[in-house]
Amino acid sequence: MLSAARHSLLKWRIFKPHPACITGRSFCTSSHCFLHINHVNKPQMTQHVWKPADHIPERVQALIRSQQPINSMLAFTQILRLLKTQPRTGWVDKGIPVAKVESISDHMYRMSLIAMALPAEEVSIDKCVKIALVHDIAESLVGDITPFGGVTKAEKHRREEETIDYLVALIEGYSPRFAREMKELWLAYENILCPEARYVKDIDKFEMIAQAWDYEQDYGIQYDLSEFYKSRNGIETKIVGDLCDELVKQRTAYIESLQQ
Amino acid sequence: MLSAARHSLLKWRIFKPHPACITGRSFCTSSHCFLHINHVNKPQMTQHVWKPADHIPERVQALIRSQQPINSMLAFTQILRLLKTQPRTGWVDKGIPVAKVESISDHMYRMSLIAMALPAEEVSIDKCVKIALVHDIAESLVGDITPFGGVTKAEKHRREEETIDYLVALIEGYSPRFAREMKELWLAYENILCPEARYVKDIDKFEMIAQAWDYEQDYGIQYDLSEFYKSRNGIETKIVGDLCDELVKQRTAYIESLQQ
Repeated sequence: MLSAARHSLLKWRIFKPHPACITGRSFCTSSHCFLHINHVNKPQMTQHVWKPADHIPERVQALIRSQQPINSMLAFTQILRLLKTQPRTGWVDKGIPVAKVESISDHMYRMSLIAMALPAEEVSIDKCVKIALVHDIAESLVGDITPFGGVTKAEKHRREEETIDYLVALIEGYSPRFAREMKELWLAYENILCPEARYVKDIDKFEMIAQAWDYEQDYGIQYDLSEFYKSRNGIETKIVGDLCDELVKQRTAYIESLQQ
Repeated sequence: MLSAARHSLLKWRIFKPHPACITGRSFCTSSHCFLHINHVNKPQMTQHVWKPADHIPERVQALIRSQQPINSMLAFTQILRLLKTQPRTGWVDKGIPVAKVESISDHMYRMSLIAMALPAEEVSIDKCVKIALVHDIAESLVGDITPFGGVTKAEKHRREEETIDYLVALIEGYSPRFAREMKELWLAYENILCPEARYVKDIDKFEMIAQAWDYEQDYGIQYDLSEFYKSRNGIETKIVGDLCDELVKQRTAYIESLQQ
């Protein structure tokens, strides 16, 4: 629900709000933002509630409006494509040339192969693979929000969960099994409900660290990517931790060789 | 083995061959090529045999030389990264701006999600997903060779199979289960050994056609992508065929609307 302060602010706004602003629970930083002025004439920024439907390209909306299951699948296919075209924000923020930045789907692809390759006997590899493929699927509409993107963790989660629900509703007429599975896998990852989710959380961090190292080997250390390596501390499984430690050892040797 | 004509040509070459040229079975079009002149003084192009090891970046070779299983996995991770950085050749050849062209892993990512979403009750969806993830993995080293790339289908297959065997040998010390599975999945796809492989063959074509349609919706029909749609004829499963037919119907209506 809207906080009392937000309600007060909305009451005094001088621009027409986006319809989504009335019913939602929180605020986005998208292009729907309006500059409002409150009753003490102090300029303030209020923002419309972020909703998945507002981020569907027009040509995809036309497919969805038809309400034909086959068109829902074609719409879903086009939404998946947005994972190909969006670069991972963390690298862009650090100045890596955008044309060289991996896409969100590039990241999930390598994660899924790392999941297949890990000798983790105690978990279902197939489930790890599917969690890896689904865990960032909401970023197709939400985008890749980093901790420095000005969106709270709770709001990021809300947007992602609403997007998953939106995608589930979109696809369940075409493939109810998949709709159900997508939600289950996403929730399992978000809430670490199974050992497979724990592995994939760790693979997510390791894949990012490996990518940081890839860029440093490509470009030298002209971009400050050190902070990405701190994610090692969040890795809990031994198999993924060992891989990460070996990588970090090699990077440390590389950095030291540059300083000599 | 080398053909008699090739043997004859090699015998008379006037430039020093790449070592790989001596023992291999066939020829590549890579940067190792030399211009040779045969004994009747007729200029001819001969080429060094394509081998996976020649296409491993130097920094990855150093990891492989260590012969430590953990370094083999780190090397494998870096080889997988080459699937992120290589654009799909078919679109580049047609003039789509390279910075806008999907990567090989982008393509496999969306294929794996389409595989998850298809209501194909008679196959193992998990196996379809894994085949989709693995089927183009050899392109990490081979590159994305199109039918117009000047490499025969047989030679393309040889390079890919040698690359799979190379990757299997690389990773089996770290994860023998995965090494075995990767080869089995790749062979299943190449030789269509199971119903899952048939589905993934069809998904491969559909994903490509969907991408052609994505580009046409992005850029209009300034690039001639018509030939990609001909792959519809090779789709055999009804579920994938129906998706493709609906997409083509919408594209046809779009083209007709432009002509009015």
